[in-house]
Amino acid sequence: MDRRSFLKNSALGGTAAAAASLATPAISQGREVLTMVTTWPRGLAGVWDSVERVVNNVADMSDGTLTIDAKAAGELVGAFESFDATTSGQADAYHGADYYWVGQHPAWAFFTAVPFGMTVPELMTWYYGGEGQALHVEVGEIFGVRSFIAGQTGAQGGGWFRQPITSAGDLQGLKFRMPGLGGQALSTLGVSVQNIPGGEIYQALSTGAIDGTEWIGPWSDERLGLQEIAQNYYPAGFHEPGAALSVGFNLERFNGLSTAHQRILEVACADAHQHNYALFTANNGPALQRLLSSGVTTNTFPDDVWDAFGQGATEVLGSYMDDPIFKKVSDSAMASMRDTSAWLSLADSPYTAQRDRVLSAL
Amino acid sequence: MDRRSFLKNSALGGTAAAAASLATPAISQGREVLTMVTTWPRGLAGVWDSVERVVNNVADMSDGTLTIDAKAAGELVGAFESFDATTSGQADAYHGADYYWVGQHPAWAFFTAVPFGMTVPELMTWYYGGEGQALHVEVGEIFGVRSFIAGQTGAQGGGWFRQPITSAGDLQGLKFRMPGLGGQALSTLGVSVQNIPGGEIYQALSTGAIDGTEWIGPWSDERLGLQEIAQNYYPAGFHEPGAALSVGFNLERFNGLSTAHQRILEVACADAHQHNYALFTANNGPALQRLLSSGVTTNTFPDDVWDAFGQGATEVLGSYMDDPIFKKVSDSAMASMRDTSAWLSLADSPYTAQRDRVLSAL
Repeated sequence: MDRRSFLKNSALGGTAAAAASLATPAISQGREVLTMVTTWPRGLAGVWDSVERVVNNVADMSDGTLTIDAKAAGELVGAFESFDATTSGQADAYHGADYYWVGQHPAWAFFTAVPFGMTVPELMTWYYGGEGQALHVEVGEIFGVRSFIAGQTGAQGGGWFRQPITSAGDLQGLKFRMPGLGGQALSTLGVSVQNIPGGEIYQALSTGAIDGTEWIGPWSDERLGLQEIAQNYYPAGFHEPGAALSVGFNLERFNGLSTAHQRILEVACADAHQHNYALFTANNGPALQRLLSSGVTTNTFPDDVWDAFGQGATEVLGSYMDDPIFKKVSDSAMASMRDTSAWLSLADSPYTAQRDRVLSAL
Repeated sequence: MDRRSFLKNSALGGTAAAAASLATPAISQGREVLTMVTTWPRGLAGVWDSVERVVNNVADMSDGTLTIDAKAAGELVGAFESFDATTSGQADAYHGADYYWVGQHPAWAFFTAVPFGMTVPELMTWYYGGEGQALHVEVGEIFGVRSFIAGQTGAQGGGWFRQPITSAGDLQGLKFRMPGLGGQALSTLGVSVQNIPGGEIYQALSTGAIDGTEWIGPWSDERLGLQEIAQNYYPAGFHEPGAALSVGFNLERFNGLSTAHQRILEVACADAHQHNYALFTANNGPALQRLLSSGVTTNTFPDDVWDAFGQGATEVLGSYMDDPIFKKVSDSAMASMRDTSAWLSLADSPYTAQRDRVLSAL
């Protein structure tokens, strides 16, 4: 990517959004309807639940005076056209993962996940207790969007491999499916990174077109059937340690809503973040047990592989630091992450390790 | 405690709540006002923030048609009279920590924290993604209360000690401040457990009336000044690995509200749980750094002390298992905790450890 392209896009995005002639808001008998495009197939387990959570809570809390008409990818526009549809006013909002828009600006990545970035408790802390939400608003407003995180898959698994990874040397020439900045990091390490949509992963892995893949977590991966064709599972990965989903509203449309409706949307999105994390995690636990029962072996990458991941992630993230907005968001996120991790690593981590040790011995 | 007393209380509570003659709801020009008593001093850092979060979001989302008049402890009733005030209809709701009501029923403890119980991610998973919220409703309805968790301090620190704890033998005769089931667990281990209100801890510790104390976490403990009089700090504790705060509504009053108002209250409480966790954690990180800079030493309890904590906790929790409601809630919570911990311990924990190792070396 050209380092300057997103700066240019940023300026253009702001101007374009301000100048866009918006469709007349759909108001009928005092009832407002927001058209929300999404980057998801309708009904996709977990992810679509977060869409429905927002839709239902907004309708219920507003007593039906504000409703959201959610469109699956392709119904109004294609998945990756959701952002432009929202900024242009063709749609009133999108639900997606904000790192899809790194071509617009790389700082969007921080509001989904970055390699070697925050876990879910760390992200919650930065977003709701620190500067995260305000920075999300700031980045969104450049493009004419009002942004909220509104879903959460939890940590995405390290992935499935046909052969175990025993050293960093095994990464050379490995054909591995991983999108986004994580994939860019692997590319710096000699991995042949493949971008393959979810629906095509099973076939690619089973035919040997790829040597391995990550997807989401045990619940989602089990549904894809990955355990049938690759028995080496690495639960811990570096690329998306807590992946938030987001809603972005057309800024002018959002600002035209009543204060009560604005607040309902904001709180419904925050609720969906926590609720969706709980849903994914509640399903990942039992799915992991089923995978283990079916003969899957869980592995951990050796230290030298983690060292390589860290070098790759640092190189990729560092390459964007000459953009002042990216650096501002990154500095804020990393400072918050360091402080939070220092506390959690002294309080929660030793507690959990000791509890699990003691309870298993009792 | 008499094993049968809370069963009797349970039956009585249900009858009493059903028969209570409620005060006429405060309705003025279509606007409903809920009187909410609390167990907190007005403005108590962190805890009162979760009260205000609920109050403000409910007023904003309902466009002022539903407002909450929050009373500090002592303004209408005393802190520990909040539950009875709500079930009797003297107040419409309370904000407190539900383990204050273990005298009414020990199962209330699970909706704040139990020794060797769930961390915050585990609690979120059980409550919002599993059976937790439904069980909270079920326990509440016995007493005529509609319950929601609505705040979260995060893991409470292991505490401050005038002398280091080097083995389980050091617990014998130790004068230590810890309320609730954690305190009961310490009692089984020979600790002389003291129940001292927050405002009196500093003096008790500085005069040697107690040898040590826990309070909340670095942010709150620093404000109490505990670092001035006890330099041995144990960040990881066994007693409250994630302490939720709750709102309980008078059930009849809640059921009389519109569906929109009910939903606004439920979602505002869920939002406050996540937001308050973020607030505490965002403040605990920097406070820990300040404490370390001021010369505080962080310690970890040795394994045999954790073994003793586990034995004490298991004994105390086990003593309630002949109550079927307690056992039902406990079984649900522990099964969810096991599955969630199995996944997080393979995904999040190794990731965090490797990330922190690699980033500190780069």
